[in-house]
Amino acid sequence: MRDLTTTSVTDAVFEQMGETPNPRLKQVMESLVRHMHDFARDVELTPDEWLKAIGFLTKVGQTCTPARQEFILLSDVLGFSALVNLLHDKTAVELGTESSLLGPFYQQNAPSFALGDSIAATSDEPELLLYGQVTDKTGKPLPNASVQVWQTDAKGEYDLQKFHGEQMDMRGNFRCDSEGRFHFRAVKPLGYYIPMDGPVGALIRAQRRHGCRPAHIHFLIGADGYRELVTAIYLADDEHIDSDTVFGVSSSLVVSPRDNDPDAPIKGIPAIRYDFRLGRAADNETGRVGADPSQILSMAE
Amino acid sequence: MRDLTTTSVTDAVFEQMGETPNPRLKQVMESLVRHMHDFARDVELTPDEWLKAIGFLTKVGQTCTPARQEFILLSDVLGFSALVNLLHDKTAVELGTESSLLGPFYQQNAPSFALGDSIAATSDEPELLLYGQVTDKTGKPLPNASVQVWQTDAKGEYDLQKFHGEQMDMRGNFRCDSEGRFHFRAVKPLGYYIPMDGPVGALIRAQRRHGCRPAHIHFLIGADGYRELVTAIYLADDEHIDSDTVFGVSSSLVVSPRDNDPDAPIKGIPAIRYDFRLGRAADNETGRVGADPSQILSMAE
Repeated sequence: MRDLTTTSVTDAVFEQMGETPNPRLKQVMESLVRHMHDFARDVELTPDEWLKAIGFLTKVGQTCTPARQEFILLSDVLGFSALVNLLHDKTAVELGTESSLLGPFYQQNAPSFALGDSIAATSDEPELLLYGQVTDKTGKPLPNASVQVWQTDAKGEYDLQKFHGEQMDMRGNFRCDSEGRFHFRAVKPLGYYIPMDGPVGALIRAQRRHGCRPAHIHFLIGADGYRELVTAIYLADDEHIDSDTVFGVSSSLVVSPRDNDPDAPIKGIPAIRYDFRLGRAADNETGRVGADPSQILSMAE
Repeated sequence: MRDLTTTSVTDAVFEQMGETPNPRLKQVMESLVRHMHDFARDVELTPDEWLKAIGFLTKVGQTCTPARQEFILLSDVLGFSALVNLLHDKTAVELGTESSLLGPFYQQNAPSFALGDSIAATSDEPELLLYGQVTDKTGKPLPNASVQVWQTDAKGEYDLQKFHGEQMDMRGNFRCDSEGRFHFRAVKPLGYYIPMDGPVGALIRAQRRHGCRPAHIHFLIGADGYRELVTAIYLADDEHIDSDTVFGVSSSLVVSPRDNDPDAPIKGIPAIRYDFRLGRAADNETGRVGADPSQILSMAE
C-alpha cells in the first residue's frame, strides 16, 4: 500500500475496507468510494476546490439545529432525496397514491385534533377545507387510518421557521372515521423559498436557481398492514408548479380548491378533496424519507 | 418537471442547474450529481440508510472545531484526500520530492526557530536530529527556503489533541541558510490512532480497520518561484508502514534514523537526513491539500 496512483488508490481503499463484517455497509461504502473517486478523477478536482468543499460541508453540518436540517435540504436541492424516494417506491409490494418528499419540516408529536378542527393556531387568514377518504388500492375504506398533516401558513412560513421550534402551528394529527374519511380546516398555504440564509442557499444563488417550492400540503398517512404513505398535494395555480427546487411534484398530486363543492362536509369555504390509497406493507417496512430534525443526531450512532 | 423517474430525476437536476454562470461550478456540480445519483441507484439506497447518512454527516460537521477538522479526516480515511493530492501532482510543471497529505493538524502561525533549535517545547523524550537541503530538481540549492514542520510527540499526540489549541508544541518554522540547508531537533514521533471518539472513528471501527497512521513528520516547504511542497517522511520501523489508514506513504518518503551519522551537523543524537527537491511553479499556483482547521469555516463563503 505504497506508491499509489490516481487509479490504484481506489483499490487500496477497498483493501482496507475488505474486512467490514456488515455486508451491506461494505457494499454501500465501496460503491460510495468508487463513485466519489470517479467524480474527483472526472473533474480533476483541485486542492483549492476540495478545501472549499470541506468548508462548505462543515458549514452545512454546523447550520443544523434541532429545528433545522441543512443536510436534508442539500440532499433535496440535488435531487438526491427525490431519487431515494423513487427508488423506495419501486420496492413497494403494491403502489397506492404517489409519494413525495417528507422534507425537513416534519415533526413528531404534533397536536391531535378532532375531525373538522382547524390546524391554524395563530393564523386568521381565509380558510381552506381539506377532506377525503383513505382506502386500500381497490377503494376499500381503511377505518381509523391516521392522517398527519403539516404545511406553511398563508405567508409561506412553517412554524419551525416562525417560532424556532418553540410553538407548533399549521400541523396536526387526525384519526379517520369508520369509513376512512377525514376533513379538517387549514389556510391556503403559500409557496416559499427554501432557507436561503445558509450554505445551501448560497449554492442555490450561485446556480441562479429561484429556490422556490410550489405551495403544498404534506401528508403522512398510516393504517395497520399498509405501507406508510409520505406524500404532499400541490396547488395547481402556483407559478413554480413545474420548477420545484426539490423535485417533488407529480401530476397526480396537483389539485385546485373548489369554491362551491356540493360534497364538502363543511360549506362556505373553498375545499380540496383528495382520496389517498395505501398499498399493502411488506414485512418490517418503514417508509420515510426525512425525519424530525431533532431526532436525527440521535440516529447517527 | 413532473412525474420524474429514477433516471429522469438526474436530468431534471441538470436542467435546474443549467444557468450556473461559473462554468467550473457547473461542471463540478453536474459531475457530482451524476456520480451521487449513480451511487444511490447502484446500491438502491433505502430511506433508512439515507437518514443514517444524514445523521452521520451532520455529526461530522458538528464535531468540527477550530482545533479539529472531522470532514478532512473523513476525506482522508476514504482515500479522497490522497486522490486529490495525486491528481494535483499530475498538474505539476516539474515534479520534485513526492508529496503527501497535509492532514488535519497543520496550523498557521507556528513559532519561528533558529536552525539547530528544538521544536519540542514540553517534551523531554530522547531527541532526534533532522537535517537536509532544499534544492531545485537538478540539485541546485535554494537559499533561504522556508521549512515548516509539525509532528506528534513521542506518545503519538499532536499539540492540538493534547492542548486543544491552547498551546503549540512539536511544530515550528525554519529558514534555510544560503545553501538551502536546514537542521533542527525534535523527538522521535510515534504512530497514532486517528481521533476515534467521533463519527469517523465509529466508521473505522465498523469497518474493522486499525485506524493507525505510521509515525511521520510533516513538512511544508516553499521557495520563490517553486511549487509549494506538502509532504511527510515516514519511519520505516513502524508496524503500520504498509497500511496507513489515510493512504499517504510513498517508498521514496520512508526513512530510518542513523545513530552515528558522520555528516550530521549535531553529533550524539540519532539523525535523519532528507533532501527536498522543489519543482518550478506554474503561474498563480497553490498546492495544499488540507489546511488549518480554524481557517476553514471562513473559506466557505
